[in-house]
Amino acid sequence: MSTIFTKIINGEIPSYKIAEDENFIAFLDAMPLVKGHTLVVPKKETDLIFDLESEEYKNLWGFAQEIAKKIKAAIPCVRVGVAVVGLEVPHAHIHLIPLNKVEDMNFKNERLKLSDQEYTEIQNSIINY
Amino acid sequence: MSTIFTKIINGEIPSYKIAEDENFIAFLDAMPLVKGHTLVVPKKETDLIFDLESEEYKNLWGFAQEIAKKIKAAIPCVRVGVAVVGLEVPHAHIHLIPLNKVEDMNFKNERLKLSDQEYTEIQNSIINY
Repeated sequence: MSTIFTKIINGEIPSYKIAEDENFIAFLDAMPLVKGHTLVVPKKETDLIFDLESEEYKNLWGFAQEIAKKIKAAIPCVRVGVAVVGLEVPHAHIHLIPLNKVEDMNFKNERLKLSDQEYTEIQNSIINY
Repeated sequence: MSTIFTKIINGEIPSYKIAEDENFIAFLDAMPLVKGHTLVVPKKETDLIFDLESEEYKNLWGFAQEIAKKIKAAIPCVRVGVAVVGLEVPHAHIHLIPLNKVEDMNFKNERLKLSDQEYTEIQNSIINY
């Protein structure tokens, strides 16, 4: 069965997409810890990020670097944090999280509930940087 | 003034080193969240990881991939998580954290206090994989 991320990649589940190329996609987390929380995902389904083939793995991080720079420019934050946890969805993904304090990256925090308009504004502000 | 990581790199502060090459170093975190918690650091002092030059940045992640595979083999865990926070030391560094549950990556958790013998055993178990 496809992972939820493969369904997003295939357009079966909608997302607020930030960027996409042949191998990778970035979209806003549907349950963000903070505004601008973005997921970066390889299109090929692989559970563990460290099991990706070396070149694909490094290119995934290169793709994430470009997205992180846009997030840093668009979203007020001290820096963009990175997390790979992956205990919930068995499809490797990088969290890019605008941080102002270390607590912003606690995955046990309550997630934000944003309106469609808020998501769209965040999406556009990141894309347009 | 040199960062604490530069002092470790220069051998002015001791560490439990896991691996080192011309550009990167990995050593056990002195205040680990869990056993096997390791830091991967570029030798060149740069505050924000995303400000590293693209090739150096991707090679840093490549270096981390090799270390993560050794940690996964050596330390009982479901997977090796990744975090980049960097609000405390202005020298880019990647946390590699053996995870069994999402709470293992909460940076507000109390840190482990290990003996020199425990650190050395963990260090050797990772190095020897």
